[in-house]
Amino acid sequence: MATFPSDLAIAKGATLQPLADVAARMGIGAHLITPYGREVAKIELAAIDELADRPRAKYVLVSAITPTPLGEGKTTTTVGLGQAMRHIGRSATVAIRQPSMGPTFGIKGGAAGGGYSQVVPMETLNLHLTGDFHAVTEAHNMLSAVLDNHLFQGNALDIDQHAITWRRVLDVNDRVLRNVIVGLGTKTDGVPRQTGFDITAASEVMAIFALARSVPEMRERLGRIVVAYSRDGKPITAEDIGGAGAMAVIMRDALRPNLLQTLENTPVLVHAGPFGNIAHGNSSVVADLIGIRSGDFLITEAGFGADMGAERFFNIKCRASGLRPDAAVVVTTVRALKAHSGRHRIIAGKPLPEALFAENPDEVHAGGANLRKQIENIRLHGVSPVVAINAFPGDHPSEHAAIAEIADAVGARSAVCTHFADGGRGAIELARAVAEAAEEPSHFRFLYPDEAPLREKIDTIARKVYGADGVDYDLVAARQLDSYERNGFGNLPVCVAKTHLSISSDASLKGAPTGWRLPVREVRASVGAGFIYPICGDMRTMPGLGADPAAHRIDLDANGEIVNLS
Amino acid sequence: MATFPSDLAIAKGATLQPLADVAARMGIGAHLITPYGREVAKIELAAIDELADRPRAKYVLVSAITPTPLGEGKTTTTVGLGQAMRHIGRSATVAIRQPSMGPTFGIKGGAAGGGYSQVVPMETLNLHLTGDFHAVTEAHNMLSAVLDNHLFQGNALDIDQHAITWRRVLDVNDRVLRNVIVGLGTKTDGVPRQTGFDITAASEVMAIFALARSVPEMRERLGRIVVAYSRDGKPITAEDIGGAGAMAVIMRDALRPNLLQTLENTPVLVHAGPFGNIAHGNSSVVADLIGIRSGDFLITEAGFGADMGAERFFNIKCRASGLRPDAAVVVTTVRALKAHSGRHRIIAGKPLPEALFAENPDEVHAGGANLRKQIENIRLHGVSPVVAINAFPGDHPSEHAAIAEIADAVGARSAVCTHFADGGRGAIELARAVAEAAEEPSHFRFLYPDEAPLREKIDTIARKVYGADGVDYDLVAARQLDSYERNGFGNLPVCVAKTHLSISSDASLKGAPTGWRLPVREVRASVGAGFIYPICGDMRTMPGLGADPAAHRIDLDANGEIVNLS
Repeated sequence: MATFPSDLAIAKGATLQPLADVAARMGIGAHLITPYGREVAKIELAAIDELADRPRAKYVLVSAITPTPLGEGKTTTTVGLGQAMRHIGRSATVAIRQPSMGPTFGIKGGAAGGGYSQVVPMETLNLHLTGDFHAVTEAHNMLSAVLDNHLFQGNALDIDQHAITWRRVLDVNDRVLRNVIVGLGTKTDGVPRQTGFDITAASEVMAIFALARSVPEMRERLGRIVVAYSRDGKPITAEDIGGAGAMAVIMRDALRPNLLQTLENTPVLVHAGPFGNIAHGNSSVVADLIGIRSGDFLITEAGFGADMGAERFFNIKCRASGLRPDAAVVVTTVRALKAHSGRHRIIAGKPLPEALFAENPDEVHAGGANLRKQIENIRLHGVSPVVAINAFPGDHPSEHAAIAEIADAVGARSAVCTHFADGGRGAIELARAVAEAAEEPSHFRFLYPDEAPLREKIDTIARKVYGADGVDYDLVAARQLDSYERNGFGNLPVCVAKTHLSISSDASLKGAPTGWRLPVREVRASVGAGFIYPICGDMRTMPGLGADPAAHRIDLDANGEIVNLS
Repeated sequence: MATFPSDLAIAKGATLQPLADVAARMGIGAHLITPYGREVAKIELAAIDELADRPRAKYVLVSAITPTPLGEGKTTTTVGLGQAMRHIGRSATVAIRQPSMGPTFGIKGGAAGGGYSQVVPMETLNLHLTGDFHAVTEAHNMLSAVLDNHLFQGNALDIDQHAITWRRVLDVNDRVLRNVIVGLGTKTDGVPRQTGFDITAASEVMAIFALARSVPEMRERLGRIVVAYSRDGKPITAEDIGGAGAMAVIMRDALRPNLLQTLENTPVLVHAGPFGNIAHGNSSVVADLIGIRSGDFLITEAGFGADMGAERFFNIKCRASGLRPDAAVVVTTVRALKAHSGRHRIIAGKPLPEALFAENPDEVHAGGANLRKQIENIRLHGVSPVVAINAFPGDHPSEHAAIAEIADAVGARSAVCTHFADGGRGAIELARAVAEAAEEPSHFRFLYPDEAPLREKIDTIARKVYGADGVDYDLVAARQLDSYERNGFGNLPVCVAKTHLSISSDASLKGAPTGWRLPVREVRASVGAGFIYPICGDMRTMPGLGADPAAHRIDLDANGEIVNLS
């Protein structure tokens, strides 16, 4: 692998098709396509209606086992699977999230897939794309300014300064912005108070834009955002303070999905990127409403493991979109299952432990509980799982066989795939397995009904998906839940904010932990996005930069070409 | 005028030409044009070389007398004059700044010109355009994060925390961000310190991007930004802390100028928007390097009155670009000259005083000193002035005649123009006067040589342009000047940050004040942009929202169309 080319080098060697041709293969006419640069286009939302008579694609979710901090190649597999469909004579559209610029310049790097399963142009994708994230930043901070201006201009709505929930956002990894005091200076510089910044992906505006089905619905959802509470405990909304219209104007064009393509010219819709932790971590509903009529398969991904992104895909995103999934892929790697044996510690930014590379199928079996539980988490929702064994250079065939045995033992299809090194043809077997699974009748079901009380919803997710013995609420969390029920938010789905590095709420517990209880410290409400999120443990909503961030190395060369972007 | 249509209504009724046709009339081939949406394109910088053999356009600056807080229609006149050139059989390109979104949602409204002299599409222009401002925000804040991360990771360069000059930026009017404390929380949340946010237009990155002639030059300038001083007084640059490469990558595509058109299909380059106060307030050098080979005339504007934007255009922008202007328009209104009589007070957001509408040519003469001084300020640089009398509905012919008399008495051409109501044909007389003035041999000269000491440069501007008796430096300002000379920044031009509402540094002094001294409180350095800026009085670099900001009214209607954007 020493001579395997870099992602950027592969991406630069791609032969791109004109986007009008890519769109035409999706059944989308040129009148619905607006170019943004030479290699990206936006699709008009009118496409949703224009495509309504076309056949419905099979809807495939790509999820994963509980990942190591390095990630297990979920986007790469989503892209590889999309590319593979053509090799078995089927058409596919891929729908993924837009990467966040903060982490691109931090430790994580970009998120365009990798190797020969990439979305191109990767530079545009990993940088501004068409500015949708910037629109979220601008709309979010416009509301913040309107809110602080309301306080400054006399606070007619009697907002309790200590009950303001709306913060500010930037798409930068900047730890010093987590906790700030604003409004210092003189009388003309506003009302001083403590607040903070989150990364743009964590903005409720991002979650709203990912869940709205139309511009008018987005406008309404923006109006419903709860920014604060009055001194007598009444929720104060973005509509109340007169900020929702301006936000909708700033966000209007962003709601059109972005069309790109894979290295093998598979259409890719890249749209929205809500945080996978305090939000639902899925790409946009409008992209899926277009993609569902654009080919034989619509393949999308959800953040983190199946306990996180997939659960939210089923119970939050599918609730909002009305779409029903036909199959779900669980991306699995040898290294992650070995880590789930509890015998290795993988740290982002550090070399992998040597012992991880020794042939050891028993260790794979020892970590198998995680894969079994994540397969179960897919089946809980009535959806057929397919295990994608994402091959890495250091893997041994006996270890791939061990994963296949685990899947087989619970009756799940599996396939080894090498799409990173081989592109679409490396995922042909996976594509066949997915096509078979998607042909089975779907028994898709939500995990809980809308009308269940919030505590019951949290309890159901904790026990059934996480394998907890129950839930413990801190006093403040209990009070918040009561207040949300009282304020009429009790019918919303829940989005549990917990670590993604364990199925439990303790990142150090590997495999499929049992005999533990979910501790809920606090509960917040994204009323515009339409979910309640209990916070379990310390949730970072603004990352920091490391000692040697990518920002130190990413640069332009003498020809103005970008170097060291990955 | 009660039935005169709104700017937005006029703009929506425009018949736009395909941008490839607009570009073709500029001599720019389709291979140099990249569409961003249907009605905006970016022009590759390769156009500068490809156009090098075409004849050089006459280079015309549009400046103004000292404006009222409402502005006197400089952008509208720039657009109207551009449109008028076709009516006298000449071709023209217009080059203007991109409006800032903060003020668009504040009190000021957008900046696309007005009436029948507008740049279209005005909605795109006043909102995200192609995301250049967002790129500036992102690049600026990336450097801020890298800087605070340097402190957090051990401060290897021994940065003096109390000598950090780099702040953060957002394109929102948000007064509470002027003075903030960051880094609160725990040990992992960074090093606490006081800092603040400016509006994006005030970023040095904006000034750099407006002055760079190429991507490599922009990269170098970004590296030269001084972000702080070490404890032994050494300047610490963006290059030193490893942030300049990432910024250049984020800014690369933004350096390509944006092509739009007027209501009459005149090509318009909209590019960059540096603050007119602490920066030079002129659109980009690269846009002008393209426009100077794209027709018979290149018409650009500079912020505020001739003492401000025009002086910087001559001494900062022309120094950077190497271009020499051929004529300068001084936009003048009856209402502003009446205000310069000292008898009226005009306040933004409030109705104009009734007395201003009474026919009163004597009052126009009483305010004439301001016009005479601003004409002189153009001539100081060896450039021919032309007075544009920008007609408003309430004006009287005798008052227009008074302005013409003032111009005539000092030997300057003048013309009444009605381009707001009539489009290009309303500025035909102005276009003829400008064409004549531009035919005169240019004696363009800088006001001071590069090698003059900083104090001498400031003194020259204060005495010759502002009419001051001299300059007084606070102790801190004197120390800063000494340190800049010592650090090798003494050869940079200066950009005096003072009020734009008076030629003096006291906003309440109208006309052409004499018998006063310029007080310099503090001196800052934009080493990357390449100027030193003395601060005279209280300079706001982050505006606030008013009691009833435009953000409260701007919204989407039931059809998703934008309303109340102006």
